Amino acid sequence: MPGIEKLAINQATTRDRWTLREAIEGYARHGVRGICVWRDKLAECGVSQAVRLLSDHGMTVTGLCRGGMFGGADASTWRATIDDNLRAIEEAAAIGARTLIMLAGGLPKGSKDLPGARARVAEGIAEILPAARAAGVPLAIEPLHPMTCASRGCVTTLGLANDLCDELGEGVGVAVDVYHVWWDPALDAEIARAGDRILAFHVNDWLPDTRDLVFDRGMMGDGVVDIPRIRRLVERAGYDGMNEVEIFSAENWWKRDPDEVVAVCIERHETAV
Amino acid sequence: MPGIEKLAINQATTRDRWTLREAIEGYARHGVRGICVWRDKLAECGVSQAVRLLSDHGMTVTGLCRGGMFGGADASTWRATIDDNLRAIEEAAAIGARTLIMLAGGLPKGSKDLPGARARVAEGIAEILPAARAAGVPLAIEPLHPMTCASRGCVTTLGLANDLCDELGEGVGVAVDVYHVWWDPALDAEIARAGDRILAFHVNDWLPDTRDLVFDRGMMGDGVVDIPRIRRLVERAGYDGMNEVEIFSAENWWKRDPDEVVAVCIERHETAV
Repeated sequence: MPGIEKLAINQATTRDRWTLREAIEGYARHGVRGICVWRDKLAECGVSQAVRLLSDHGMTVTGLCRGGMFGGADASTWRATIDDNLRAIEEAAAIGARTLIMLAGGLPKGSKDLPGARARVAEGIAEILPAARAAGVPLAIEPLHPMTCASRGCVTTLGLANDLCDELGEGVGVAVDVYHVWWDPALDAEIARAGDRILAFHVNDWLPDTRDLVFDRGMMGDGVVDIPRIRRLVERAGYDGMNEVEIFSAENWWKRDPDEVVAVCIERHETAV
Repeated sequence: MPGIEKLAINQATTRDRWTLREAIEGYARHGVRGICVWRDKLAECGVSQAVRLLSDHGMTVTGLCRGGMFGGADASTWRATIDDNLRAIEEAAAIGARTLIMLAGGLPKGSKDLPGARARVAEGIAEILPAARAAGVPLAIEPLHPMTCASRGCVTTLGLANDLCDELGEGVGVAVDVYHVWWDPALDAEIARAGDRILAFHVNDWLPDTRDLVFDRGMMGDGVVDIPRIRRLVERAGYDGMNEVEIFSAENWWKRDPDEVVAVCIERHETAV
């Protein structure tokens, strides 16, 4: 089982209770040395203060959430999306994030053109890629669970994310989140195919009685995902980064004392990851 | 757009209001000549009366729902599941169903062994296949949306269903339900690969604001699925059976007057399928 030096926590896990300062201080207080930062929290804190806090606490920044979201319907939304992604790249570089997590976005309002939406993801990433390369920020395409295909993640499989990497080349990789990919019969082959393009590994769990399509993720060990098996697959593919806990849980973990949540993350990282 | 002679309705669509007799009479009253029957409704009606009613109304029986569900944990549950599937084959033969729809089943309670669950589906189908062949009832493996992987459908992609067909041989095919497969980047290729093994084609829609993992399907045209595109793919692959409307909708369609539901199915089959 992995040691605490391999553990990072995605700030979404303590989203409703802790600011970025509180999260950095809180995770560090428990001995956790990796964090994935969210942009709304970063804006609230200010980049220069965040840089200082992250450095003072010896934090590895596993990623910045999030870029992408290319599902806008018209030209002005598209321009705004690209500009926002360019700002995200600057922010990721400023805080030393190892990657910028990219969500594809869903279908434009009123559209049924899924192949078109996917083509736009490729176009959008291609447009920001020179800036990302120049800034030294690798982009991690995160395939999302197919149940969010219409609303936020038209890149529904690791296979499709790998296809995009092949198409886009240097500077683009993938984020593997067990919640999003555990059901995929092609998972083993596609993790191997991703190889050293795996830029992030997210852990959490699928609860057998899941009720919500987004905000009902489980703590590692509370669900049905064989997480150690998937961790071994990503490690065998060449990933040697941190295991990042990311839990969206409106009715459970977000309501708890964040210190308790972090303690449980540490324990479950040892026993169930 | 397809004519009414291509329209079948899965009894689940009017589940909460109509018995099998009422469904047969109701669909026929509107000029619909295809029905997919559910076993609980068939049991309530009795097989011999059902046979008479179906024949009197000139109904094509597109399928019987459902066999499979190989997710039991222990030997006695396994035996009971096999026996139940053998009864389902007899019933399907008795009512002249063109296929028996097979759901894979989910993970056994407490299990995280997804590859094992999938292996059990292959074993289960292999065990009942001689009886199905003898009865002349083709088995249609229906891949379910990945969000139901843990609870009812560990066969999450058409690709995996096709793999099972390859493994099991003669007498096994697939059911393609747009709700379950629309998000799949491999869909076009896997429909072509399925070819004449496509035994059923189910239509409905994915609502952009879907709230429930099972009982919140939309009427064709109300969601984001490009149904005509998928229909053309299955037809190009060789399918020339009926288009079967199957809508699980606890909060909307199941609450409406079934005559209204059937009328809307007919209209939407013309305009949105």
